[in-house]
Amino acid sequence: MRSVRALAQASARSRRDQFLVEGPQGVREAVRFAADQVRDVYLTAEAAARHPEIEDTARAAGLYVHPTAPEALSAMSEDAQGVLAVLQRRKVSVTAALAGEPRLVALLHQVRDPGNAGTVIRAADAAGADGCILSHGSVDVHNPKVVRSTVGSLFHLPTATGADLAETIATARAAGLQVLAADGAGSLDLDDVADSADSADSAVDTEATTAVTLARPTLWLFGNEAHGLGEAERDLADAVVRIPIHGHAESLNLAMAATICLYTSARAQRRAHR
Amino acid sequence: MRSVRALAQASARSRRDQFLVEGPQGVREAVRFAADQVRDVYLTAEAAARHPEIEDTARAAGLYVHPTAPEALSAMSEDAQGVLAVLQRRKVSVTAALAGEPRLVALLHQVRDPGNAGTVIRAADAAGADGCILSHGSVDVHNPKVVRSTVGSLFHLPTATGADLAETIATARAAGLQVLAADGAGSLDLDDVADSADSADSAVDTEATTAVTLARPTLWLFGNEAHGLGEAERDLADAVVRIPIHGHAESLNLAMAATICLYTSARAQRRAHR
Repeated sequence: MRSVRALAQASARSRRDQFLVEGPQGVREAVRFAADQVRDVYLTAEAAARHPEIEDTARAAGLYVHPTAPEALSAMSEDAQGVLAVLQRRKVSVTAALAGEPRLVALLHQVRDPGNAGTVIRAADAAGADGCILSHGSVDVHNPKVVRSTVGSLFHLPTATGADLAETIATARAAGLQVLAADGAGSLDLDDVADSADSADSAVDTEATTAVTLARPTLWLFGNEAHGLGEAERDLADAVVRIPIHGHAESLNLAMAATICLYTSARAQRRAHR
Repeated sequence: MRSVRALAQASARSRRDQFLVEGPQGVREAVRFAADQVRDVYLTAEAAARHPEIEDTARAAGLYVHPTAPEALSAMSEDAQGVLAVLQRRKVSVTAALAGEPRLVALLHQVRDPGNAGTVIRAADAAGADGCILSHGSVDVHNPKVVRSTVGSLFHLPTATGADLAETIATARAAGLQVLAADGAGSLDLDDVADSADSADSAVDTEATTAVTLARPTLWLFGNEAHGLGEAERDLADAVVRIPIHGHAESLNLAMAATICLYTSARAQRRAHR
C-alpha cells in the first residue's frame, strides 16, 4: 500500500522505474494500449461493477486484477475513484517519437505545469498527432497530475522525455518535418497561414522568406507557460507563428494555444490529403 | 483585512455584493476596463515598483491605492502576488450581453469547474466574442478561481449570469444569431462546417436540414464539463456540432473544445467580412 502511494513522489518513481495511473479512464487506456507495462491493477468491487471493461480487458491481456477494499484503495490514492494501476516506466527516445513518416508532432520546451503538459498531450492525441516530445527541464510526464490530465492519451501516442531541443529539431527535419514555433511574438498569423493552406498557396514570412504550408508534415514547438520561447529557441524554428488575439485578452494559455495550432494543422493536412 | 479575505466565500460576496480580484494582470484590467466598479486597490511597494502601470491607471481613474505591507496583503489573499482589488458586483443581463449586433457569443450551461468557466471566458475574449452568458446552475463567475483564470477577460466583455437557457436562446435568435451546440454527439463535424464556410457554401444537417454557415453571427452553447449537454438542451439549438477526434482520445475538455469552436467561428467570420 505504502509503496504504491509513494509513487506519487518523483524519487520513488526514479528508484523503482514505475508510476501510478489513477482513475477508470486512465487505467482502461493503460490496460488497452500498454498492457505490457502494467504491473498491478487495483479495483474496488464497486468500480469493477461500474467499469466491467477494465477487468475484461485486463484478463484478456493476461493481467491479474487485485480486488481491493475501498479503504485500502483510498490509502494508496485519493484520486483513483476505485481504480488504480502501477506501471513500469518505459523510456521513449526522440527517434521513436519521430519514427515512421510522422505528419504531426508536438514538442514542449520546459513546460512545468502538470495540467498544461497533460492537456497538450491529450490535444495532440485528439488532433491525431504521431508523437509528443518534452525537452529536459520539463515536468516529469509520469507525475500523477500529468498522467491524470492526459486521460489515457499518454498510452495512445509515443511520448519522449528529456529531449535536447536542437537535436530534436535536427532529427525532426531529417524526418521531413517543418518546424513551427508557436509564440505571441511570431511574424506570421496562424489564420493567414491557414488561409494560404486553403488556397493551396503558401504564406511567405517576409523576415525569413520561409514558405510555410500547414498541410506539410509539421513539428510544433511550444514554450514554457509563463515565459514562452526565448529568441534562441524561436530561431531554431523555420517560422514563428502567432495565434491572432481579436479581443482585449493578452494571450491564450499554453494548452489552449497548442490545441488551436494542432487542430489547425490537422485540418489543413486532412484537406490536402483527400 | 478579514472582511476582504471573506470575499473568497460566496456568502460574503452575496451579502456585500462585492468580489475580489487577485494578481497584477486581473487588477490591471479591472482598473482599466471597470474602474467604476473598483472600491479598493491594495498594493505592496514591491508590486507597485514592478507594475507601475497599475497605480498610474488607478490614479488616472480617480481611484485611491492603499499602500499595503506584504504581510497584510498575504493575510487578505494567498494568490495576489502583491496586488489585490475589491470590486462592486454588477449584474449583467442577458439582453446586455446580446446588445448591439453581436456576431459571436458563448453560452455556458451548468458549467461547474471554476478553471473551465474562466478559461472559456478568456477564450471568448481572445476570439473577439461580444459576450458570455452562464446559465443558472453554473459556477459563480465572481468565485476567485474563476476571476483568476479569466486573467482580466471578465472585464473585457459583458458576462451575464443566472440565465434561463430557453429564454436566452430565444433572445439570441431575435438578435439574429444562429445557435450551435458543441457536443460529441453532434451530427455535424466542425471541419466539414468550416470547409463549407470556406467554399461560401453551407453544410446541410441531414437530420434537421438546417443550413449552417459559420460566417453567420453565432451563439455557441457549451455544456457541463462532465455530462455535456442533455438531449433537451441540444434540441434547443439549430444544429449540434462535434469536434472531430482523430486519434484515440475519447474527447477534449470543455475549455479546449470551446476554444476551437470560438476560434473556428472567428476565422470564418473574418474571412467572410473582408
